[in-house]
Amino acid sequence: MAASKCSRLSGELSRRFLASVDTVLFDCDGVLWRGDEVVPGAPELVTGLRRSGKRVFYLTNNSTKTRAMYADKLGRLGFGADPGDVFGTAYCTARYLRDVARLQGKVYLIGGTALSQELEAAGIPHVGSGPEPVTGGMKEWAALEKDPDVRAVVVGFDEHFSYMKLTRALQYLRDSDCLFIATNTDTRLPLEGGRAIPGTGCLVRAVETAAHRKAQVIGKPNSFLYDCVVKECGLDPARTVMVGDRLDTDIQMGSTCGIRTLLTLTGFSSLEDAKSYQESGTLSMVPDFYVDSVADLLPALASADQ
Amino acid sequence: MAASKCSRLSGELSRRFLASVDTVLFDCDGVLWRGDEVVPGAPELVTGLRRSGKRVFYLTNNSTKTRAMYADKLGRLGFGADPGDVFGTAYCTARYLRDVARLQGKVYLIGGTALSQELEAAGIPHVGSGPEPVTGGMKEWAALEKDPDVRAVVVGFDEHFSYMKLTRALQYLRDSDCLFIATNTDTRLPLEGGRAIPGTGCLVRAVETAAHRKAQVIGKPNSFLYDCVVKECGLDPARTVMVGDRLDTDIQMGSTCGIRTLLTLTGFSSLEDAKSYQESGTLSMVPDFYVDSVADLLPALASADQ
Repeated sequence: MAASKCSRLSGELSRRFLASVDTVLFDCDGVLWRGDEVVPGAPELVTGLRRSGKRVFYLTNNSTKTRAMYADKLGRLGFGADPGDVFGTAYCTARYLRDVARLQGKVYLIGGTALSQELEAAGIPHVGSGPEPVTGGMKEWAALEKDPDVRAVVVGFDEHFSYMKLTRALQYLRDSDCLFIATNTDTRLPLEGGRAIPGTGCLVRAVETAAHRKAQVIGKPNSFLYDCVVKECGLDPARTVMVGDRLDTDIQMGSTCGIRTLLTLTGFSSLEDAKSYQESGTLSMVPDFYVDSVADLLPALASADQ
Repeated sequence: MAASKCSRLSGELSRRFLASVDTVLFDCDGVLWRGDEVVPGAPELVTGLRRSGKRVFYLTNNSTKTRAMYADKLGRLGFGADPGDVFGTAYCTARYLRDVARLQGKVYLIGGTALSQELEAAGIPHVGSGPEPVTGGMKEWAALEKDPDVRAVVVGFDEHFSYMKLTRALQYLRDSDCLFIATNTDTRLPLEGGRAIPGTGCLVRAVETAAHRKAQVIGKPNSFLYDCVVKECGLDPARTVMVGDRLDTDIQMGSTCGIRTLLTLTGFSSLEDAKSYQESGTLSMVPDFYVDSVADLLPALASADQ
């Protein structure tokens, strides 16, 4: 179907769009919910897409939940999903280390319970979880005992992130053979009512600054989450759409992967942001389509069902 | 005196150089010592400079010591100094807030005891010192109770830096009227034997990433430490030299302030680094002179004394 970039999806265009799609990849935070507050109509849309034979997958940069935890939350909020439909960075980081990097050794983990559980499920030993108290002084911090089996540092969301963890990561990363992986680089995690807390990107920048190295990033805008969907489930790129609220992650990833992109305005990025990328010619961050909310697709879905 | 950039100081050139200098500004870490290990000959040089009538000041980005603590360390390592000779970022940050920003209100401090004491000495109330335990979950972190009197966030070296402190800093910095000050942005603190621990720059980058704002930096390469020396003690820029081990802080600051610069190779930057800035035309990071160690000036000083 021919369409200029950044068109509002409504009416006949919505119906033609839905008819051209078999697989819908949804970002979660800011698209389907904010914190624990569902975007009104989103569960009905997802359920309706499934009922009309489309496949739905969830691609999220959030590393604080395992596949099973995400399936639980999706179910609780009325979406319904199998763990196998969820491609979060906790799961995909473990998959990357096991199947792509073929890590022989341990991970030094800056991350929470979900990352820890996904690493365990993938059979990857790791150290570093939980709080690490401050002990000693500068000399002791510079000479922290290292686990000789650590071959990778992984940085995800960690509410116990601390100077001691940063110091330990630096000691491992001074060895240039030590892998350096970040789940994602989102700067903030948006919550209900416009509130926000610092995102994993803040922790990643701190470690990168200490290590004088850049992390390899598993999450969007990189394509690894998408690659995992393709490998595990298969899809036709020409009949797939990525739906997200962030131009610099969701839309950029969709562009990189050669699939269509749909921006929803219930989250991080605004239509003005998209227009300004369009004017400056940064087209990889301009969505093919936009909607105010994913619920705007409900009428087209209903008419297609009839 | 005429000299091409980046000349080795030795022999007759050293003698002429010393004769042209009244005031010597020394960086400390990597120049006079590494950790608690003195650079051999450095105390004799500093003592000799003083004996021959030159004034010596210490300009350090390190925020972990008050003026008094620095004077103690200088004395213990054989340099001898009055607190008033020391222009560290703990002291100068407090001075900036009191005399330049004329802060009316409290500081939310990410920093250690020295910063806390210098703020107190300047009569600036502050909150945030010490460890902050993790309590609650994401919703609670997004709604942390704020002190309504806080008007500035200051980030210095803090071994208790944590996700909770980062979160609190973000809540304050979302108010665009809240000042955002960093003591310095050094990425690592070099210690004895080539060891290093993460520097304040890592913490600053984390907070900047969360806040979507850049901090105003008190330390080198900015000129504020130098401005404080000028204001409190006076100096003739034409007869002053900045001696440091880092091109991007010490030498850059000297260039900005229009004084001569001397790189010593006992610390962070190498002669190759300086030559490569020279070749690329980044002349503000090329020192006028270099020495392997500040002790290389001892013979010229001795012959001038005769």
